[in-house]
Amino acid sequence: MKILVIGGVAGGATAAARAKRIVPQAEIELFEAGPYISYGSCGIPYYIAGEIDNLNKLIGFSPQSFAEKKGVKVNIRHRVEEIDRKNKEIIVKDIAGDKLIRKKYDRLVIASGANPFVPPIPNRDLKGVYSLRQLEQGQNLYDACRAEEVKKAVIIGGGAIGTEMAEAMVKLGLEVTLVEKSPQILNLIDADMAEIVAKHLKDKKVRLLNKKAVKSFIGEHQLQAIELDDGEIVECDLALMALGIRPELKLAQEAGLKIGAAGAIWVNRYQQTSADDIFACGDCCETYHLVARQQVWIPLANTANKQGRVAGANVCGVREEFKGVLGTAQIKVLDLDVARTGLSSREAIRYGFDFFTQKINAFSNARYYPDHGFITIKLIVAADGRLLGAQAVGEKGVDKRIDVLALAIYHQMKVDQLQDLDLGYAPPYSSPMDPLIIAGNLAKKKVNNSKS
Amino acid sequence: MKILVIGGVAGGATAAARAKRIVPQAEIELFEAGPYISYGSCGIPYYIAGEIDNLNKLIGFSPQSFAEKKGVKVNIRHRVEEIDRKNKEIIVKDIAGDKLIRKKYDRLVIASGANPFVPPIPNRDLKGVYSLRQLEQGQNLYDACRAEEVKKAVIIGGGAIGTEMAEAMVKLGLEVTLVEKSPQILNLIDADMAEIVAKHLKDKKVRLLNKKAVKSFIGEHQLQAIELDDGEIVECDLALMALGIRPELKLAQEAGLKIGAAGAIWVNRYQQTSADDIFACGDCCETYHLVARQQVWIPLANTANKQGRVAGANVCGVREEFKGVLGTAQIKVLDLDVARTGLSSREAIRYGFDFFTQKINAFSNARYYPDHGFITIKLIVAADGRLLGAQAVGEKGVDKRIDVLALAIYHQMKVDQLQDLDLGYAPPYSSPMDPLIIAGNLAKKKVNNSKS
Repeated sequence: MKILVIGGVAGGATAAARAKRIVPQAEIELFEAGPYISYGSCGIPYYIAGEIDNLNKLIGFSPQSFAEKKGVKVNIRHRVEEIDRKNKEIIVKDIAGDKLIRKKYDRLVIASGANPFVPPIPNRDLKGVYSLRQLEQGQNLYDACRAEEVKKAVIIGGGAIGTEMAEAMVKLGLEVTLVEKSPQILNLIDADMAEIVAKHLKDKKVRLLNKKAVKSFIGEHQLQAIELDDGEIVECDLALMALGIRPELKLAQEAGLKIGAAGAIWVNRYQQTSADDIFACGDCCETYHLVARQQVWIPLANTANKQGRVAGANVCGVREEFKGVLGTAQIKVLDLDVARTGLSSREAIRYGFDFFTQKINAFSNARYYPDHGFITIKLIVAADGRLLGAQAVGEKGVDKRIDVLALAIYHQMKVDQLQDLDLGYAPPYSSPMDPLIIAGNLAKKKVNNSKS
Repeated sequence: MKILVIGGVAGGATAAARAKRIVPQAEIELFEAGPYISYGSCGIPYYIAGEIDNLNKLIGFSPQSFAEKKGVKVNIRHRVEEIDRKNKEIIVKDIAGDKLIRKKYDRLVIASGANPFVPPIPNRDLKGVYSLRQLEQGQNLYDACRAEEVKKAVIIGGGAIGTEMAEAMVKLGLEVTLVEKSPQILNLIDADMAEIVAKHLKDKKVRLLNKKAVKSFIGEHQLQAIELDDGEIVECDLALMALGIRPELKLAQEAGLKIGAAGAIWVNRYQQTSADDIFACGDCCETYHLVARQQVWIPLANTANKQGRVAGANVCGVREEFKGVLGTAQIKVLDLDVARTGLSSREAIRYGFDFFTQKINAFSNARYYPDHGFITIKLIVAADGRLLGAQAVGEKGVDKRIDVLALAIYHQMKVDQLQDLDLGYAPPYSSPMDPLIIAGNLAKKKVNNSKS
């Protein structure tokens, strides 16, 4: 059996390795357009901040070691140009050798990933304007942030990458302006929760411009400023476009594979595309949302890895299911931890739920214990008490509470059941009444109208 | 309605306050033998270590402020001597006034707590021999640890308090010997997991003596040494007996209340004792174990608080259930976090389960991220794949993983379902494949004998 895998960063590398473990006699070959495979792009902002001393630390396996240890043939700098479904072949451009080759497959895995969205802003090709996705782009931005002449940076887009890079640039001593076209940063959480982060960024001297868009980049060869849609000119030596990513669909579309309603490659629960012999995983494909109960596109590294495992099994004919996601996400923004799971208020409205919210301010652990921090938790609760989603922002214990709530939502728990949870307690970790249980007890009253 | 509450530390204070919220017109009166109510005894080791600058920070409410804010009449230094069930009265010793008073009740809550177990070791009354439970004892030990002449300390008992106090005493620069009669410390976790902590204590210069018991304390008026059962004499200026606690049952026993098989006051799920009008909560009573499916005695502050809430509702006639516990517990021992939930291997054997274990060594979060730490996770898995228990020891992320597994066990998840969990990922918090998912996938193979 010959299995070809397109893309080798997260989902693709995982699928290839898993398939080889399951069917050792299968011939498995991976094609990656870039020079690296198997790397953690989520670590790039920390490398740029100087917290990771070597970009190579983000690389799990070199192409050589992956090939040796996993038994998969790896082709880097090989860009797949076309999927020829009729002949069950892919057409690949060997970039170094500048030639096209054809490869037969019995089964194919597409893990083509996603690319930064770069809107057609005038002068976006000026020196000093950056995007961030791949390792090479990470190295470029690392160098740029450290250049003698670079003092002022503008980040366009206040999502995860934008805020993580604000952290990195503040740590490097740059004067940072963050431009976000919507009224709040971090649209993955509710506006009131994002406001806590916004305030923190401002405290750290980040200039935050909401409801502003960039009209043009200004400069001759080198960026000198940006012009906002209200006419303001913001001088800067560097601009990062962090406006999100888009799935890489070209190959799949041209091959006639079904694109789902969420705008990425449609797959069933076996990570199988609309073509029986073609599977997909990672940022290029949709996934099922367990609360929304429909297909969504939420590209994340951990989802890509899980889908890769499942694709790697099914491509070998071993039936395994990827159950879906809850939309769990975490971001560190300077000293603040930000996390969410399930649906946000905005999403709960979009998906037609009748819901209310419950927010509490608490401490992550015993207030008398020196190493404690504030935590704000917000629950999104269906009218019948079922947990739909949760968000938390704070100094400590945020990731824990959201992971616990992810399980609660997975099990369709109601808020009145949170009091039954036997969560651990010792002063360094929690309070005798964990913030989650307090939040649950308060939310319960809104369901029951009980007076206790 | 007149509700009397015996004991005001955790469960009693919570029950009294809750009852008043539910039935504001009820007359609620609380009796506490000691001088303090509503305090966090779990914080005492950190006060002794000097990490909390004032013992008063452990106090939630003074008797006055509790009375004012909660509407409960508070009597400190009032020791209840007898429950007269026939006349529905309690007989109380007013310690300061040195007189006995009788109080009528309609309903009674017993929250008499637990006391340190002090075995009859010869000379245990010598100056320099301590127990630790109440705030006053905490202050005594605080002073003792700082006395000029105190250089060498012996801790007898390697459980939670013993190891937490080892941390405190090491931080204070004392030379610490820990004596534990069983072959391992921390019997609440498996021996192989406890060994990680033992090694860490030894690295921190704690002398660890397992399978040793104390035969006698040696000294005239002041402790000078202890004699072990093997004849060794260990010089010391201070000895702490940390041999666990025992439920305070005297009142309940004399009143003819049922004592359960686990050796504490029997209660049903409404926290009601064998007498219809008497409820109990906290360290004096048993509770139901959701995995063992029987009554157990696991005295913990968070359980006491939850039981207190439930007792406070039921004592007013509002039906609420305390579902039970999973045996979740957490301890910090120097730089190590230790936690467990569900059953340990020893308990799984005791309760007759057919099980296997799966242990993994991993990193709490992305290895390339500077702030990461090791974590060892051990799953206790029934032969059919159901999670029975889990333990973790490590530098970071231990409490999170055990809380998540507590939910998994609560929902009777099987190890092959752990891969479905949408746990959050960002480099500061986890890895793209969370250690829990790795552990689940490995354990799954032992259930399935699958090759992938």
